[in-house]
Amino acid sequence: MFVLVNLKAYPCDPVAVAEAAADVAGDTEATVAVAPQAADLARVADTGVTTYAQHVSPNGHGSHTGSTLAESVADNGAVGTLLNHSEARRKLADIDGSLDAAARADLDTVVCANNPEQVAAAAALGPDAVAVEPPELIGTGTPVSQADPDVVEDAVDAAAAVDPSVDVYCGAGISTGDDVVAAEELGASGVLLASGVAKADDPRTALEDLVAPLD
Amino acid sequence: MFVLVNLKAYPCDPVAVAEAAADVAGDTEATVAVAPQAADLARVADTGVTTYAQHVSPNGHGSHTGSTLAESVADNGAVGTLLNHSEARRKLADIDGSLDAAARADLDTVVCANNPEQVAAAAALGPDAVAVEPPELIGTGTPVSQADPDVVEDAVDAAAAVDPSVDVYCGAGISTGDDVVAAEELGASGVLLASGVAKADDPRTALEDLVAPLD
Amino acid sequence: MFVLVNLKAYPCDPVAVAEAAADVAGDTEATVAVAPQAADLARVADTGVTTYAQHVSPNGHGSHTGSTLAESVADNGAVGTLLNHSEARRKLADIDGSLDAAARADLDTVVCANNPEQVAAAAALGPDAVAVEPPELIGTGTPVSQADPDVVEDAVDAAAAVDPSVDVYCGAGISTGDDVVAAEELGASGVLLASGVAKADDPRTALEDLVAPLD
Amino acid sequence: MFVLVNLKAYPCDPVAVAEAAADVAGDTEATVAVAPQAADLARVADTGVTTYAQHVSPNGHGSHTGSTLAESVADNGAVGTLLNHSEARRKLADIDGSLDAAARADLDTVVCANNPEQVAAAAALGPDAVAVEPPELIGTGTPVSQADPDVVEDAVDAAAAVDPSVDVYCGAGISTGDDVVAAEELGASGVLLASGVAKADDPRTALEDLVAPLD
Repeated sequence: MFVLVNLKAYPCDPVAVAEAAADVAGDTEATVAVAPQAADLARVADTGVTTYAQHVSPNGHGSHTGSTLAESVADNGAVGTLLNHSEARRKLADIDGSLDAAARADLDTVVCANNPEQVAAAAALGPDAVAVEPPELIGTGTPVSQADPDVVEDAVDAAAAVDPSVDVYCGAGISTGDDVVAAEELGASGVLLASGVAKADDPRTALEDLVAPLD
Repeated sequence: MFVLVNLKAYPCDPVAVAEAAADVAGDTEATVAVAPQAADLARVADTGVTTYAQHVSPNGHGSHTGSTLAESVADNGAVGTLLNHSEARRKLADIDGSLDAAARADLDTVVCANNPEQVAAAAALGPDAVAVEPPELIGTGTPVSQADPDVVEDAVDAAAAVDPSVDVYCGAGISTGDDVVAAEELGASGVLLASGVAKADDPRTALEDLVAPLD
Repeated sequence: MFVLVNLKAYPCDPVAVAEAAADVAGDTEATVAVAPQAADLARVADTGVTTYAQHVSPNGHGSHTGSTLAESVADNGAVGTLLNHSEARRKLADIDGSLDAAARADLDTVVCANNPEQVAAAAALGPDAVAVEPPELIGTGTPVSQADPDVVEDAVDAAAAVDPSVDVYCGAGISTGDDVVAAEELGASGVLLASGVAKADDPRTALEDLVAPLD
Repeated sequence: MFVLVNLKAYPCDPVAVAEAAADVAGDTEATVAVAPQAADLARVADTGVTTYAQHVSPNGHGSHTGSTLAESVADNGAVGTLLNHSEARRKLADIDGSLDAAARADLDTVVCANNPEQVAAAAALGPDAVAVEPPELIGTGTPVSQADPDVVEDAVDAAAAVDPSVDVYCGAGISTGDDVVAAEELGASGVLLASGVAKADDPRTALEDLVAPLD
């Protein structure tokens, strides 16, 4: 399983979460990755954890003030990036462009989507993975695998019909090891989570609990 | 064949073009449609021509100042809408939402895209048709069917692989009957054109020439 | 006083509201205007009511699919336009561009803003009027003149300091004649309202009540 | 004078430029600042140079994936930020929100604008500085102080009329010490430049030439 902890713009210590994630990742078969704010990427990557950007822009080098250049993100230690998160929805043409930008910078890509139709659309653009996150469940604490298991299975089927090489992750409401196991049983090969770890009193324990049933 | 004349924000008389299109449509097997500015929809539809909106918003009824409500567009005579034109690129989630909005208002839908990958993505969202328009050819007068025939064939294949019920149109540089025939031979079941008719000295003659080889 | 009824994307009959507004306008010193969806502009203007667009785009004539061209809006009977409504926030440079576009098409302009600082910024761009609408009060039924009278007075002062020729309107929660009088006493020379009329069982009576204390 | 080198998304070595800028800054009365990609902020700030972000988002801490949090930028060494650069135009309400966010994180602010009207609007929002950069001159090598001196003087006057405490910088085409002197003589208290240094064969020499006439 791939477990991605999205730190969003939370008031957590990104390095402390990253160190905990790096430690926990050493003791499990699962890959545990952390996606901090762009400005925190270098410090997070220095911990040795698998580091993702939260977004990269579709542009390449050039006159693009305020963009998040894929090459810059990679130079600072990121090995992958989220794209089109529900809090950072992008134009279809720009998702396509950002996938090209990520490919040039050798970044793995996870394109988020609201529902199975959008998952299929995202899969058609050729990312490494797609993630289905029903917006109405994000941050609720109710896992999508429990609130709406069909949406996960439908997303897995939808992506497979378009391109079987694209992994499917699921997000929204994931906070326990049981949620991760449930996601796996529904066909997901990864999970996205955020507040369950980033806002936990003890992120290390939260991560240990999360990956415990996976080994 | 489906022939859609997009009036964009051109300084033409939308009613005069619509009347010419309605006349020409009566003498051909092809469907000839006109897509004017939203404010001109009612006057264009009054000519009897098949009328398309240039865009509809993803929202339904409610507090959405400045939106282009699908129901309002339909109430004023539109029977279909373009979506995600290269001059009006939209978020993936909003294209999906606009397709739902169009379905509620009984509008046919044509989602535009830059390349075969985006055509496949658009087809996965379930529109009536997708249109491939390489941005670099728009307005050039060089038809895509001649400058880059592969992109049309690849778009036809890409859409068919995702959903064979989705029609594929092509645009960019179409201005003559030969261009339309070439598009048809490459597998397209419709064409989008704009300046070739809207900016012609005599739109009626331009349209007649366009559909002449189709009958 | 200037009273603008913004129909947003409400499920009302725009022509019925416009006819009521035209009638009421004939019996009062106040100017009563209606801002419908762009596609409804021509039918609303046909009632003889003062007709506003909800938005116009910064572009002029040209290749701008899906834009709302100021000239097209004017050709269909609009004499003014809202800009930058809180449901249609725009870039600073585009508000400036839309004001230029509106000037070319001879449209009066009302730029909306959240607070006195943004009112001052909007006034610096040279519109005919600015409107202060605290977003948290929109649609609440609690008038800004009652919930936050300081914001109206501060907006009036802020606009006057930048350009005394710019009128100041206020919106958010306006639904009765008392609200309009209160706005006038705070220095506003107009009001924006929406659901109080557009969603009223009897828009005509709602409008009559609204303007009754003004004469 | 304040001299800000905007690295945009150029393929330069941000640390090398920052080291050169830090050295040159030590030998001049002018403040020399560098604005790199967000992911490069920490490494640039480590050189000791005055470090600016290219943009910060209007949001505070919270669920804002893909945002550029002001606090995160400050934690990584930035002491200021550009806002609303012509390559990153923002909504009026978001510029206002980003100024609040920057204030919370103790960042100095420079709001860019196209023309004197937008400069006045930006000044009304209370930034530390505004910068006038006619878009048609950016990257041309022809300095605004030479191509269009009136726009600089008008911007200085426009900002002063709204808020005399707001500094005015100018940008677009600045590449030599003479350009900086000309800007100063027109009333600007700072300059923005980009390619003139970032794409120079020898950024250090370019910077030395730039500040030489200032001492």
